[in-house]
Amino acid sequence: MVNEQSQTVKQLIDDISQYLSDRDFTRLTQSLRKQSMAEIVTILERFGERQRAVIYRLLPKEQALSVFESLPPPLQADLLRGLQDVEVAALFAELDPDDRMWLLDELPAAVASRLLRGLPRRERQLTGEMLGYPQGSIGRRMSPEFVSTRFDSTVAESLAKVRRRLDDAETVYTLPVVDSGRRVVGVVGLRGLFGADESEQVGALTQPAHTAEATEDAEKVARQCTDLGLLAMPIVDSEGRLVGIFTIDDAVRILEYEESEDAARQGGVEPLRRPYRSIPIHRLVRSRMVWLLVLAIGATLTVQVLSVFETTLEEVTVLALFVPLLIGTGGNTGNQAATTVTRALALDEIEPRDILFVLTRELRTGFMLGLFLGAIGFVITGLVYDLHIGFVIGLTLTAVCTVAATIGGIMPLIARTVRVDPAVFSNPFITTFVDAIGLIIYFLIARAILGI
Amino acid sequence: MVNEQSQTVKQLIDDISQYLSDRDFTRLTQSLRKQSMAEIVTILERFGERQRAVIYRLLPKEQALSVFESLPPPLQADLLRGLQDVEVAALFAELDPDDRMWLLDELPAAVASRLLRGLPRRERQLTGEMLGYPQGSIGRRMSPEFVSTRFDSTVAESLAKVRRRLDDAETVYTLPVVDSGRRVVGVVGLRGLFGADESEQVGALTQPAHTAEATEDAEKVARQCTDLGLLAMPIVDSEGRLVGIFTIDDAVRILEYEESEDAARQGGVEPLRRPYRSIPIHRLVRSRMVWLLVLAIGATLTVQVLSVFETTLEEVTVLALFVPLLIGTGGNTGNQAATTVTRALALDEIEPRDILFVLTRELRTGFMLGLFLGAIGFVITGLVYDLHIGFVIGLTLTAVCTVAATIGGIMPLIARTVRVDPAVFSNPFITTFVDAIGLIIYFLIARAILGI
Repeated sequence: MVNEQSQTVKQLIDDISQYLSDRDFTRLTQSLRKQSMAEIVTILERFGERQRAVIYRLLPKEQALSVFESLPPPLQADLLRGLQDVEVAALFAELDPDDRMWLLDELPAAVASRLLRGLPRRERQLTGEMLGYPQGSIGRRMSPEFVSTRFDSTVAESLAKVRRRLDDAETVYTLPVVDSGRRVVGVVGLRGLFGADESEQVGALTQPAHTAEATEDAEKVARQCTDLGLLAMPIVDSEGRLVGIFTIDDAVRILEYEESEDAARQGGVEPLRRPYRSIPIHRLVRSRMVWLLVLAIGATLTVQVLSVFETTLEEVTVLALFVPLLIGTGGNTGNQAATTVTRALALDEIEPRDILFVLTRELRTGFMLGLFLGAIGFVITGLVYDLHIGFVIGLTLTAVCTVAATIGGIMPLIARTVRVDPAVFSNPFITTFVDAIGLIIYFLIARAILGI
Repeated sequence: MVNEQSQTVKQLIDDISQYLSDRDFTRLTQSLRKQSMAEIVTILERFGERQRAVIYRLLPKEQALSVFESLPPPLQADLLRGLQDVEVAALFAELDPDDRMWLLDELPAAVASRLLRGLPRRERQLTGEMLGYPQGSIGRRMSPEFVSTRFDSTVAESLAKVRRRLDDAETVYTLPVVDSGRRVVGVVGLRGLFGADESEQVGALTQPAHTAEATEDAEKVARQCTDLGLLAMPIVDSEGRLVGIFTIDDAVRILEYEESEDAARQGGVEPLRRPYRSIPIHRLVRSRMVWLLVLAIGATLTVQVLSVFETTLEEVTVLALFVPLLIGTGGNTGNQAATTVTRALALDEIEPRDILFVLTRELRTGFMLGLFLGAIGFVITGLVYDLHIGFVIGLTLTAVCTVAATIGGIMPLIARTVRVDPAVFSNPFITTFVDAIGLIIYFLIARAILGI
């Protein structure tokens, strides 16, 4: 089934490429009409910017808006560049306020403010309020179009209110319950209202709510929402008054965005933010170039360290044979620790203030791993080369693993403390840093034991 | 606000540790009563296995079940070991069928089958059906407790049906619509039913459904669910007949699980599956030991390669100085490509059959990056050392980057083809492999240019 489906998509994409290159728009339009929304989104994601705009403009009007809403915001921004001003203004006005905020983040400031000015009054007001919250806060990701109810309303009144707002509310499945001062006192599910007696008071059905303040970090709130499996969370101001609702589909979107970013940075790549297939090669090169250069410059440190020990190397060339093995093992140990700690930070399991806890744990873990590898290294090198070399390798492995795990473990915490994405400071960075330290340790041990 | 909150949790955990070590269960119980469910889950995640069991048993009965349901399945399994058989059987019977499946995956086979035998008849039957679907399939992650409606029912009939099933259904917000043969013809939202005329036919409100077959891969279906922002997806058998419903909160759980696993493996760590703080050090060591050893054994390849070129090294010791820089850059380039391709695979943007496409893209990307770095390397080394060394370094950088990006790019695809997690075969593995190849390239170029 999975294979059949992707076979179809593959076939479809081949067909569409053919129609595009033949400029056969009649058949292209026909073939698009037959597809579901999900398939059209997939198709758009597979093509480059120019072809994507052509395909999009052939979609039937009623489908175009929902397809647009389902595209990743960077692709939305790309698409807008291929459309006429009137079309852009219409699309922009029809978006939900929260979707509009995602798109605004992608647009150049001049375009964004022009589009904002062109919005109908009410939409402009809603969007303006959201823009008042700090960058990266949940206030910019919530929806201001909520249905709430009062704790002293009856079930019948609340259901009537839901009915009136069915079309424009972000969700009607979770209703924040407020007091006379618009302060959130809990939530009630449509499920709860639906099963209750019509004359009952909402207060009796209300359950404790997990709320968040509009200025809180969006990623943190999204994580709470998905961890607790909540369909929606009321968002409040500093006085506890209801200002918006945050739904699980937006939480998923935020977390996926953050996870793609973390994954990229941990591999030393700037996040691409667009599907792999649709990215031109020069952009792939650009997303890697800077990091590669920075790391290469960092690695010149190893050349300098080795220069210092050049005479040692000339005397005992055999030492050079183990350089890649030793620094590689150090890098791997550092990466392991960094990966574990970065993930724990992302999942909010630890905080920067736990640095001493992490340091002692990783030091002990690294030491044990080092002892184990060092013992093996000692035996093998001792047998193949000689006992002195065996000692040097065994001791170096122990020391390097200890140092590498410690550095790898605390680096993400330090990054977070200085407000840098922990993933940036991570694997390739740690490898380079640990390489240089590992070499110094290696040659100092070698000199001491071999008496050079 | 964020800081205040975590301050409280920190304080709370300190208090609880104190009560635990004083064995002051009265105050411990009192302090637990004051906490919300989310806070109790956080507390349980922070403590080790034995203390966790003590705290859990002090929770009020009515809270204990929902706390249990919110814990990650590995922690649920740990907890069961600390409870008495009667308690375990009661908990197990009260879980929703889909939550029960997660837990079953964590339990030793003997415990699992004993617990299954102890289930009430209907629950045993539901769970048995789910166990009939293959490991890793969506059939094991859906819920068999759905409310559906017929396309020829009226809105009033459907709402009455929803009302009857409010308590046990997984969701009532998305209803699959079926024909007389139980085949899914679409979905209708409670929102839609709610706004419609009571006498209207459901068929008129039905919207096209995104369904999945029960044997399809769970991760793939979860990704579709979140990508399209669907609250729920009907799950069907091979004839298109409704067998279950899959909800977005479970989709989030699956994706988070897979992402944690990918993140761990990409850093060369076996997934921990438990919060970092609650893991004893010997487990941390174990999760890294095997990988580290495998990689170290792989790295002995570099020792062998260098042995072959030992005489070259003795003649021109200066070549040794660049070894870490060159192989480090190769490793970084390989990692970048692997990271990008692994993520694209995880997001279903490319498939193993795209290998030629990826190969040519990464080869070109690697070559361009290599040319750029090679040119810089040539100039700098040419100035600091001499022109010949400059040539060697420049050419090696170009060749190594090209080879590394290509290998890094296709390795995840090969892994997927041979049905290994692409993340396993990834960064540390690629680094080691690329190191050895890089060294061979380096010394061959050096010998040719320096005429050794």
